[in-house]
Amino acid sequence: MTEPSQPTTTVHAGRVKELRTLLAADSLDGFLVPHADEHQSEYLPPSAERLAWLTGFTGSAGTAIIMKDRAALFVDGRYTLQAAGQTDTDIFEHVDVGTISPSDWIAGQITAGQRIGYDPWLTTIAQAERMAAKCLGAGAELVAVPNNPIDRLWKDRPDPPAGAVTLHPIEFAGREAADKIAALQQHLGANKADAAILTQPDSIAWTFNIRGTDIAHNPVALAFAILHAAASPDLFIDGRKLSNSVRAYLAGHARLRDIGELPQSLADLGSSAVLVDADVTADAIATAVTEAGGRILKGRDPTALPKAKKNETELTGARAAQVRDGAAMVRFLAWLDRVGAGGQVDEIAAAERLAAFRVETARQDRSELVDVSFDTISGAGPNGAIVHYRVTPETSLKLTPGSLYLTDSGGQYRDGTTDITRTVPIGTPSDEIRDRFTRVLKGHIALATAIFPTGTSGAQIDTLARQSLWQAGLDYDHGTGHGIGSFLSVHEGPARISKLGSVALETGMILSNEPGYYKAGSYGIRIENLIVVRQSRPIPDGERDMLEFETISLCPIDRRLVDVSLLNADEIGWLDAYHAGLSARLDHLLDDAERAWLAEATRPLDS
Amino acid sequence: MTEPSQPTTTVHAGRVKELRTLLAADSLDGFLVPHADEHQSEYLPPSAERLAWLTGFTGSAGTAIIMKDRAALFVDGRYTLQAAGQTDTDIFEHVDVGTISPSDWIAGQITAGQRIGYDPWLTTIAQAERMAAKCLGAGAELVAVPNNPIDRLWKDRPDPPAGAVTLHPIEFAGREAADKIAALQQHLGANKADAAILTQPDSIAWTFNIRGTDIAHNPVALAFAILHAAASPDLFIDGRKLSNSVRAYLAGHARLRDIGELPQSLADLGSSAVLVDADVTADAIATAVTEAGGRILKGRDPTALPKAKKNETELTGARAAQVRDGAAMVRFLAWLDRVGAGGQVDEIAAAERLAAFRVETARQDRSELVDVSFDTISGAGPNGAIVHYRVTPETSLKLTPGSLYLTDSGGQYRDGTTDITRTVPIGTPSDEIRDRFTRVLKGHIALATAIFPTGTSGAQIDTLARQSLWQAGLDYDHGTGHGIGSFLSVHEGPARISKLGSVALETGMILSNEPGYYKAGSYGIRIENLIVVRQSRPIPDGERDMLEFETISLCPIDRRLVDVSLLNADEIGWLDAYHAGLSARLDHLLDDAERAWLAEATRPLDS
Repeated sequence: MTEPSQPTTTVHAGRVKELRTLLAADSLDGFLVPHADEHQSEYLPPSAERLAWLTGFTGSAGTAIIMKDRAALFVDGRYTLQAAGQTDTDIFEHVDVGTISPSDWIAGQITAGQRIGYDPWLTTIAQAERMAAKCLGAGAELVAVPNNPIDRLWKDRPDPPAGAVTLHPIEFAGREAADKIAALQQHLGANKADAAILTQPDSIAWTFNIRGTDIAHNPVALAFAILHAAASPDLFIDGRKLSNSVRAYLAGHARLRDIGELPQSLADLGSSAVLVDADVTADAIATAVTEAGGRILKGRDPTALPKAKKNETELTGARAAQVRDGAAMVRFLAWLDRVGAGGQVDEIAAAERLAAFRVETARQDRSELVDVSFDTISGAGPNGAIVHYRVTPETSLKLTPGSLYLTDSGGQYRDGTTDITRTVPIGTPSDEIRDRFTRVLKGHIALATAIFPTGTSGAQIDTLARQSLWQAGLDYDHGTGHGIGSFLSVHEGPARISKLGSVALETGMILSNEPGYYKAGSYGIRIENLIVVRQSRPIPDGERDMLEFETISLCPIDRRLVDVSLLNADEIGWLDAYHAGLSARLDHLLDDAERAWLAEATRPLDS
Repeated sequence: MTEPSQPTTTVHAGRVKELRTLLAADSLDGFLVPHADEHQSEYLPPSAERLAWLTGFTGSAGTAIIMKDRAALFVDGRYTLQAAGQTDTDIFEHVDVGTISPSDWIAGQITAGQRIGYDPWLTTIAQAERMAAKCLGAGAELVAVPNNPIDRLWKDRPDPPAGAVTLHPIEFAGREAADKIAALQQHLGANKADAAILTQPDSIAWTFNIRGTDIAHNPVALAFAILHAAASPDLFIDGRKLSNSVRAYLAGHARLRDIGELPQSLADLGSSAVLVDADVTADAIATAVTEAGGRILKGRDPTALPKAKKNETELTGARAAQVRDGAAMVRFLAWLDRVGAGGQVDEIAAAERLAAFRVETARQDRSELVDVSFDTISGAGPNGAIVHYRVTPETSLKLTPGSLYLTDSGGQYRDGTTDITRTVPIGTPSDEIRDRFTRVLKGHIALATAIFPTGTSGAQIDTLARQSLWQAGLDYDHGTGHGIGSFLSVHEGPARISKLGSVALETGMILSNEPGYYKAGSYGIRIENLIVVRQSRPIPDGERDMLEFETISLCPIDRRLVDVSLLNADEIGWLDAYHAGLSARLDHLLDDAERAWLAEATRPLDS
């Protein structure tokens, strides 16, 4: 999205003022502006960037609440610094959602008789229920506003995207759409549901084996679907996205309908029992179902678990994608070592060079690269401490000796999505940096080598990645790992490795392992590999069904940043073994100089 | 409670049949029988042991569901073996609640139009909501049955207890009741609540600084209270429990009412906003409030957190109680080492000897012992593998050489409640036992030495206690730690260290640290100390506000069961330091032989 050309303060102060005028006309005392679209996607098309339009904040998560005389912007720890840089605290007070949630904040603001508005298409069922309960507790009312006032004010709002849809062939998907749909129908039957509503574009992409181009770096098409236990699905999608051949393919699996037909189709469900995922489904959908006499069955999106548990074809693809992605990373890191300390490379140049290496390396090996999987995070020195930093010409710093450089990037390959972070020293790192890096590494290794029983959730093992930092009075303000799709979303549910990860880890899930440490104003450290959940190797005398991780990312972890004295023998053994396997996997995509660099970068720690 | 004299099967089959007749007369297709009373206590008076009356199962947690042609008993991992021994699977199928919850089981059983009954006084608001949603989802109905059919059938049901109430003086409580009530009133005001309902006996005991004798080993009086933001509390309690002086004291803090007046008092709240803890409040109370036009505010019992965060007086008391409790344990373990391997001691004799040592030792030191804090778990060999084993003359095993003996016990001292588990070898332990014991010990030490940020929940650190077992393919099926009261409940909320412990740990909380390992049919291992949450010692260059634990239990951990080769230097250092401090604290309560035993038992590991 483009930045406004007017000064931020004036533009957004004016927009907030206009919004307040509309709210007053609707007898509303407040209005919620989440970073959300009708599909509850993490990444939005420009037409849905209402939060950025109103506040200037462009992060991937956040909520604004506009009251008559106050306004607040809620962001999480990843975005604290970015929010401070992008929005004016004279207009929006900044609130860390870890400290107080929007609904609790509202509860503290409202008084009896007040009316707080929300857009039921941009708010999930669960969010609306929580917020309504808080309002009710204070004698106030939460009011659905079908005609979003921001859309009335936003004159140059872009059109919704209409990107082309392609097929995701069986050689990558590993399972036919017809087979997935049949299994989903069986799932509905077993759960006594007549229908289920799919609102997440990646759920729909997975179900029908299609990919799209509506959202930057996320190969999905914005669409809705209704699965029926005893009939073909309805697929609601803008027909302009479909070529004749794609349309013919989809027509073999679903009744194709326009998006605008969704409300009527929901009403046509009549008294059916309808499965909806309250955490990802717009409140407006639940209202449409219940108003028609339907019965809401709350449950998880039925595609979430089978989508997360990659099949053997998808796992093979993921490993293949890691080879070319790892080789690209090695070429980039070798290049950076050669030129990085010269004072001429800035964050943008580095990010562009890395993107070029991804393209070049992929060309040598089947050319499956479609896009990067998200805007590359390329942070030098203090910018590395901004967890989801997005480089702009105004902020781009030169890499300077004695500093750290952090890059978090990935590729959308047709056979798999990648996501990797490496932190490298420019010149000689300080003892403090080596201490912190080694603690992060110990956490990374603790997770990579964890063995845990079937049924264990991500929340239960998140601590393994933090222990070494905690012992030093340190921590990081983000989760340790997120799920990742198969040529799909770079953040994919339902499992994650974080304080909030309540879903049990299951075989075939691909997650990230990315502990970090950030010293605001100085440097950032993060080490990220992708890991696959698998059955543990047999354990002599073991009694329980245990799981473990397979690390699939292929790129050295900078040994110059490791303080070997802080590692135990098992930890040294893990890093040496990880490094020892890289050359054999990557050398065929490297030139001689790069091979030599890799050999040096993967020497055993004690040599 | 006494065991029925008739064969279990016949008695309980008859009762289930009678119950089904009553259900049919009420047009009910099923009925829920939880292990619960009107106060949602964990430990029940005999008059509330409806689950045991119906099923024969006497564990402290469980639920039965009686359908027309099926019946199921739901227990957790602690009680799997006990349930198998006490109830007949011809009548009740046994279900592990970890596998399927009662509400999910119901959902799978019921069909549209069916009516499932529950007693709204024995079911919490949250339980009723979950169950009602499941019934609704299947087109069935959850029906409140005010006149519990079991009470109609149970001819010789004991009267409710009317045990004497005593005052809990300021020298132990550390804070006057008036001060606590004022703080609770302020809490209500800040949360926009006009009133709050207290239904838990320990909440009421804490608030008013009283103790009771209604429940075995739990010094509480069954009572209800209504806190008012702007008036004195109402306390609902059977007047026969109150001496003149106790009555006079309580009348200075509350309006005293009979239990039978509660429904009218709830109705008298009218349109008030009423704070209730949905997880511990009977559904009948919420119904009474809303039927009178009141507004339910769901929130945590307002006494839960201040009660859990012990003040300095309570912490000083807890440490003092540990001295006499630890000395009693040392005397017991010394005695056991002398006579245990002779083949003459059985589980009952051991438990009685331990109880006698507690009484004798307490007499030497202020005599604050009132009772044991729960029925002592005294398990030899295979009985040690039954997590909440309760010895009976029929099951009592002799301690035999080559076996393990596990004892989990505690005292209710006026200055603090204790709870400690030790596992000791009778004769020479096997290599396998030493391996397993050392892994449990590593988990115990990992938790005892953990440093973690403010805001960390028990769920986040539970894994630290399991890691070493997981690496060997092993685990244990219970939480690692529970809160404990100050001369109150031995299981106290809101925090716990387990997969389910979502509450942040805060300074002053006392919890148990009790990892274990159980080999069914062979032996059980558990090492339990009590730990207090405190601010961590200053950490050089630390950035976060960190917490740590102080271990307060004082009793050696059996060094003969430790495989030192499995411990690292830090772990050896912790155990040696723990042992090194014991003689100075305990010797004054021991005789010469016991002192010598303690000196030997606490020698450094490498000596």
